[in-house]
Amino acid sequence: MSMSLVCVKDYEREAHRQLPLNALNYYKSGALGEVTVHENKAAMNRWYIRPRFLRDMSKRSLATTVLGHPVSLPFGVAPTAMQRMACPDGECANARAAAKNGTVFTLSTISTSSIEEIATHAPSSLRFFQLYIYKDRDVTARLVKRAEAAGFSALVLTVDAAFFGIRREDMRNKFILPPHLRMENFQDNDKKSTLVNSSAGGSGLKEYVTALFDTSVTWKDIAWLKRITKLPIILKGILTAEDALLGLEAGAAAIWVSNHGGRQVDGVPPSIEALPEVVKAVNGQCEVYVDGGFSEGSDIFKALALGAQMVFLGRPLLWGLTCGGEEGAHNILQILYRELDTIMALSGCATVKDITREMVIRKEYYSKL
Amino acid sequence: MSMSLVCVKDYEREAHRQLPLNALNYYKSGALGEVTVHENKAAMNRWYIRPRFLRDMSKRSLATTVLGHPVSLPFGVAPTAMQRMACPDGECANARAAAKNGTVFTLSTISTSSIEEIATHAPSSLRFFQLYIYKDRDVTARLVKRAEAAGFSALVLTVDAAFFGIRREDMRNKFILPPHLRMENFQDNDKKSTLVNSSAGGSGLKEYVTALFDTSVTWKDIAWLKRITKLPIILKGILTAEDALLGLEAGAAAIWVSNHGGRQVDGVPPSIEALPEVVKAVNGQCEVYVDGGFSEGSDIFKALALGAQMVFLGRPLLWGLTCGGEEGAHNILQILYRELDTIMALSGCATVKDITREMVIRKEYYSKL
Amino acid sequence: MSMSLVCVKDYEREAHRQLPLNALNYYKSGALGEVTVHENKAAMNRWYIRPRFLRDMSKRSLATTVLGHPVSLPFGVAPTAMQRMACPDGECANARAAAKNGTVFTLSTISTSSIEEIATHAPSSLRFFQLYIYKDRDVTARLVKRAEAAGFSALVLTVDAAFFGIRREDMRNKFILPPHLRMENFQDNDKKSTLVNSSAGGSGLKEYVTALFDTSVTWKDIAWLKRITKLPIILKGILTAEDALLGLEAGAAAIWVSNHGGRQVDGVPPSIEALPEVVKAVNGQCEVYVDGGFSEGSDIFKALALGAQMVFLGRPLLWGLTCGGEEGAHNILQILYRELDTIMALSGCATVKDITREMVIRKEYYSKL
Amino acid sequence: MSMSLVCVKDYEREAHRQLPLNALNYYKSGALGEVTVHENKAAMNRWYIRPRFLRDMSKRSLATTVLGHPVSLPFGVAPTAMQRMACPDGECANARAAAKNGTVFTLSTISTSSIEEIATHAPSSLRFFQLYIYKDRDVTARLVKRAEAAGFSALVLTVDAAFFGIRREDMRNKFILPPHLRMENFQDNDKKSTLVNSSAGGSGLKEYVTALFDTSVTWKDIAWLKRITKLPIILKGILTAEDALLGLEAGAAAIWVSNHGGRQVDGVPPSIEALPEVVKAVNGQCEVYVDGGFSEGSDIFKALALGAQMVFLGRPLLWGLTCGGEEGAHNILQILYRELDTIMALSGCATVKDITREMVIRKEYYSKL
Ligand SMILES: Cc1cc2nc3c(=O)[nH]c(=O)nc-3n(C[C@H](O)[C@H](O)[C@H](O)COP(=O)(O)O)c2cc1C
Ligand SMILES: Cc1cc2nc3c(=O)[nH]c(=O)nc-3n(C[C@H](O)[C@H](O)[C@H](O)COP(=O)(O)O)c2cc1C
Ligand SMILES: Cc1cc2nc3c(=O)[nH]c(=O)nc-3n(C[C@H](O)[C@H](O)[C@H](O)COP(=O)(O)O)c2cc1C
Ligand SMILES: Cc1cc2nc3c(=O)[nH]c(=O)nc-3n(C[C@H](O)[C@H](O)[C@H](O)COP(=O)(O)O)c2cc1C
Repeated sequence: MSMSLVCVKDYEREAHRQLPLNALNYYKSGALGEVTVHENKAAMNRWYIRPRFLRDMSKRSLATTVLGHPVSLPFGVAPTAMQRMACPDGECANARAAAKNGTVFTLSTISTSSIEEIATHAPSSLRFFQLYIYKDRDVTARLVKRAEAAGFSALVLTVDAAFFGIRREDMRNKFILPPHLRMENFQDNDKKSTLVNSSAGGSGLKEYVTALFDTSVTWKDIAWLKRITKLPIILKGILTAEDALLGLEAGAAAIWVSNHGGRQVDGVPPSIEALPEVVKAVNGQCEVYVDGGFSEGSDIFKALALGAQMVFLGRPLLWGLTCGGEEGAHNILQILYRELDTIMALSGCATVKDITREMVIRKEYYSKL
Repeated sequence: MSMSLVCVKDYEREAHRQLPLNALNYYKSGALGEVTVHENKAAMNRWYIRPRFLRDMSKRSLATTVLGHPVSLPFGVAPTAMQRMACPDGECANARAAAKNGTVFTLSTISTSSIEEIATHAPSSLRFFQLYIYKDRDVTARLVKRAEAAGFSALVLTVDAAFFGIRREDMRNKFILPPHLRMENFQDNDKKSTLVNSSAGGSGLKEYVTALFDTSVTWKDIAWLKRITKLPIILKGILTAEDALLGLEAGAAAIWVSNHGGRQVDGVPPSIEALPEVVKAVNGQCEVYVDGGFSEGSDIFKALALGAQMVFLGRPLLWGLTCGGEEGAHNILQILYRELDTIMALSGCATVKDITREMVIRKEYYSKL
Repeated sequence: MSMSLVCVKDYEREAHRQLPLNALNYYKSGALGEVTVHENKAAMNRWYIRPRFLRDMSKRSLATTVLGHPVSLPFGVAPTAMQRMACPDGECANARAAAKNGTVFTLSTISTSSIEEIATHAPSSLRFFQLYIYKDRDVTARLVKRAEAAGFSALVLTVDAAFFGIRREDMRNKFILPPHLRMENFQDNDKKSTLVNSSAGGSGLKEYVTALFDTSVTWKDIAWLKRITKLPIILKGILTAEDALLGLEAGAAAIWVSNHGGRQVDGVPPSIEALPEVVKAVNGQCEVYVDGGFSEGSDIFKALALGAQMVFLGRPLLWGLTCGGEEGAHNILQILYRELDTIMALSGCATVKDITREMVIRKEYYSKL
Repeated sequence: MSMSLVCVKDYEREAHRQLPLNALNYYKSGALGEVTVHENKAAMNRWYIRPRFLRDMSKRSLATTVLGHPVSLPFGVAPTAMQRMACPDGECANARAAAKNGTVFTLSTISTSSIEEIATHAPSSLRFFQLYIYKDRDVTARLVKRAEAAGFSALVLTVDAAFFGIRREDMRNKFILPPHLRMENFQDNDKKSTLVNSSAGGSGLKEYVTALFDTSVTWKDIAWLKRITKLPIILKGILTAEDALLGLEAGAAAIWVSNHGGRQVDGVPPSIEALPEVVKAVNGQCEVYVDGGFSEGSDIFKALALGAQMVFLGRPLLWGLTCGGEEGAHNILQILYRELDTIMALSGCATVKDITREMVIRKEYYSKL
């Protein structure tokens, strides 16, 4: 089957056919009118690649580093919640695929596989743990300790989701996590594990978030987090130079430019538009990552040229998991590997370092020649 | 039923199914080719929201003031004519919904509920009266006196409708007000009450306006109006800095930027585009309001960031009234409340004051980074 | 029937249903890919109208002058060939409609009604004669003399059609003038009259033009034309400042900005885009007219604001003639009269002179506020 | 049949109906999401033609020179692989059509007709040979010698295809060259001739390229090429000023701006956008050619105005060959000849030299007037 699925869009289309509506809509939808979901992709085409030729491309490598850790690919797996709706193994399959491709896997707090399960399935590979901060700070502190113990290498603090973005399809579906699944990072008799299995009328996940997440978190809490862990802290969800600078001050190890796949505030800048502003502000003082709308090798190439150290993928992996579990996720990573490798080879970039800022340019530039 | 209608667009779609053609077309149509109707919405997406994170959002409020009166929401109800075509209670239901949400209701001169009825239905809430100036000035003077007596708090003088915009659907339908309804601000045997119940060949409302409205009104008449009333005067329909300044000079209490929902001159600037120019010209010397095309919380957020003290909604309430009367109108206001509240919470704005000018930026900005 | 046709687009749609394919395609088509046909209309929306309010609009007039002649409307009838394919009376019906509306009618050289017929049908009204220059200069000289004798007030020298634009539909249809019609400005046994009634394989009109029109005409021939006539000469088809200035030098009485309705060179600027450049170059030294894509009152308003003394209409009249002959043409002029009058009234312009340059602005302006 | 096919688009549509899927998709597809395929055409409309009138156009010529050789047309035939899938005579028919029209034909290395066959079919006409560099340099050296011996006038070194662009349709179809065809520049028992007749799972051509082409070619190899041949070397596939300058340094006789019809790196600048940058950099020191998306006379006119000495056509000829072999290819050239001739005549350009830089202008220019 996977033979005829040759690109991410093919997997997306096929996953749309296979997934039950409840899960499909949860995975694909964005906030309000979904303008940002659309713009995340459309904005990729506002940049042109400027390929260079007649360079020796016989030896090439896509390897790079993330926070000092070597990885084989300059793109990795973003945290997405509840992956067992896509395939029985969920996050475990995804983590194995990432490991197989030598890249980083990020586990969501609200996953359907536990921190420890992931460590078992992808023991020697690079793993990040994505953190939501609960009203009860002990909950968060315990998660941090478990992530440390399980060999995760960094904490990804998501700053853009203390509230739940309004996703209309989930309201219509009264989205819940199917009864045979749990938020596995919590104990079975804990409401943090099962509250999402029911709904009082709208999205069950929204009710979960509203009941449990702390909405009073501020920059000072980064200090608290730093006190309770030695793991580097990555701030995910930053979209402005101002917040990037505050993040630097607060001691962030990396800034992860993201609009949460267009799922939180509709109408914010597409990720690839926000990236250069953050890169400029940060000015090399920490690493910058990006996610949102990446589904072609050319998209990834552009972000790398614009200064991203790493690109992350959310939904593409969910489509992969749906169409073949670990193998599907592996295929997604392989497709993007081949696309990026080909573009690099055809643009004169033998290594990721060769993808410099001059290799992309705004469309508008050409109207001024 | 309303459970599955989760956004303004859902109500619009449902209202299109429920309304008779005559009323539907009157409500939805715009002038000539309806370019401005379309642009009013499309222009919202020319601005991006720049959200800020890690601020304490546990306590939030959408309260603000209008002409010194406290309101619970930074958006209110614009005047739209003849609301009883949408539901039996028409303007009364709408006024009750506004009152219930703690916001302002604006009654049109050419309404199918009278000034006094509205006062009865929404006695202790904030109400504005929208004024058209009749050739017979005594008619207008009497309306002003009745509005004062009925406890309305301001007069909204509509400056963009001394003539009737050409609306093609109404010409095709030979639009008339159905026979069981009246313009209730006038007495039953008065042609100002019933002229709109018939048509000599085109839109009956156009014939009404042509026969009765004064087309010679100038800035000097504002002085006349100020002499006959103590109520503050809001000028509705301004689209340029020039007119805004003349309005200030004439003693306007507020400038209401509007293109009448694209129903008068096709091809004028979308409201959200005209807003910054007027805000800049007025320079804080009076309040600035805006309407036209607002149907998502993100739209309202952008207008507030651009300097509007208040955003008004026309058609959305008509769709609400059609799909459930007062409850429908209430749902519309609740939907927008939740959308705006969520966006504020996710953008670092605990109060309306926090929605500053830097929180939005033109799309074009990103092409220059 | 015409009751339900309330705008030019309605007439266009209806004419598309009524006309035989041969005539329809000849009337509607443009050169090559028809990009300019499309852009002529689309470009109208690149300008916004800035309406002004609270001015006394009780007395209004659309009257203006053309080359010193008073007209009731600031728009008139452009020359279009072979109008009897649309209705039995063709150009005569069109001329009568223009006369009835107090505006100028322009007769094409290659018309299906003769110079003298038009003079009979619209004796006391303002008429221009559009000139093509034949290889045999005597032919042209004779036409000029006849136009003078018949009381035409100006010559419109079309500069953009010494060759025939490639119109694909006409090639497919092997377009010919139906056998019962003639180019009536020539004698029955003259090939200039009947050559277009047959085709050697492609468009019969193209073969006509190729055989007969002079392709060596230069600016010096304007001098020749001025020697043989006292009539003012209007240059139709200019699209650049450079040619406008050469036109001034050559003694043109007016410059008529036109791209021949997108029928000659595909890819030239839309007329409304070329207009300001020509207006600026001419700098008041002669009148400037414009045609191309005008079908709404708002389009005409914008051109007047941009400095056109007169706007001309081609296809709209052909649709009018098709749907009702003289009455149809009259309805078109009336529709546009009402649309323009309403927009002027709603924009604070009591007369054509009030439609100043500041009343329109580029869309892009708003992105800089 | 060809009578009703009046433009390139007609031929394209008809070819889509006639070709087997395997060949059709190979011919039409582009890399990844095919954004560049689309933009190559769309970008043509970002430029407007500024026509000039009243110039003597009775004598006209489209003749020009390429590397000093006179040609009758300023456009010629780009190299496209495996043309016998379109019609039995393939490249031979194409070369005869080019010869008949007095213009240059470029033969691909991976053609289904041999160098010598082409020389036989178009003996006295201008022919270029397009070169791919094989890992085994002797292969390339032998091709060069044969092209010299066969009277080809220049080598076109394609720099953008050492790797094969990812074309999704070819992967889905497992594209192979049909068994009755061969890469005729190689001997029958040579894998360079037949490897493309099978596929190990994806595109057979991709496997061919991967197995055989040299990926280590650099600017230094141009020196090697210059040592083994006296033929002028044209560099095809350059998209930046930087590479154009390196090309000049390396002694290129001409720079051929191309993105390989959008088939290699998706997301690069459309050819017509890259052209002015290269023209400016080269500054007259060598000739500049361009291809990519040209299918209307107006497209060609614009490229000539922007400084191209010659425009090349890839797919249009393939559609021509499909719909009528040599005659079809001839018709394509004739259509474009007539379209360009008409546009020149209607724009005041009697010769190719008259098509100066001022004759085209960016659309954006008009927004600043
Ligand atoms: C179904 C889904 C669930 C997600 N769950 C989380 C989450 O639990 N934590 C988090 O930080 N981000 C979450 N995200 C956001 C992703 O990490 C990422 O920012 C986004 O998916 C990137 O956009 P893309 O899907 O276009 O690649 C989720 C995204 C999706 C689509
Ligand atoms: C059906 C309808 C009737 C209206 N009647 C009036 C009116 O009587 N007086 C007035 O000042 N504005 C009137 N308006 C304009 C509205 O006050 C408001 O400017 C407009 O509806 C805002 O655009 P929106 O419908 O996109 O929200 C009317 C608008 C509509 C749609
Ligand atoms: C069917 C048709 C025939 C035309 N014939 C002539 C003509 O004989 N002489 C001329 O100067 N212009 C001719 N024109 C061009 C018109 O005068 C005018 O420039 C054009 O129609 C304006 O564009 P519009 O049709 O969008 O209003 C013709 C246009 C059309 C559509
Ligand atoms: C089917 C096909 C095969 C091609 N094969 C070659 C080739 O063998 N060598 C080469 O240099 N370019 C090749 N090209 C690229 C063309 O030379 C040219 O750059 C491109 O087709 C121009 O774009 P157009 O098709 O839009 O005219 C090929 C293009 C196509 C469409």
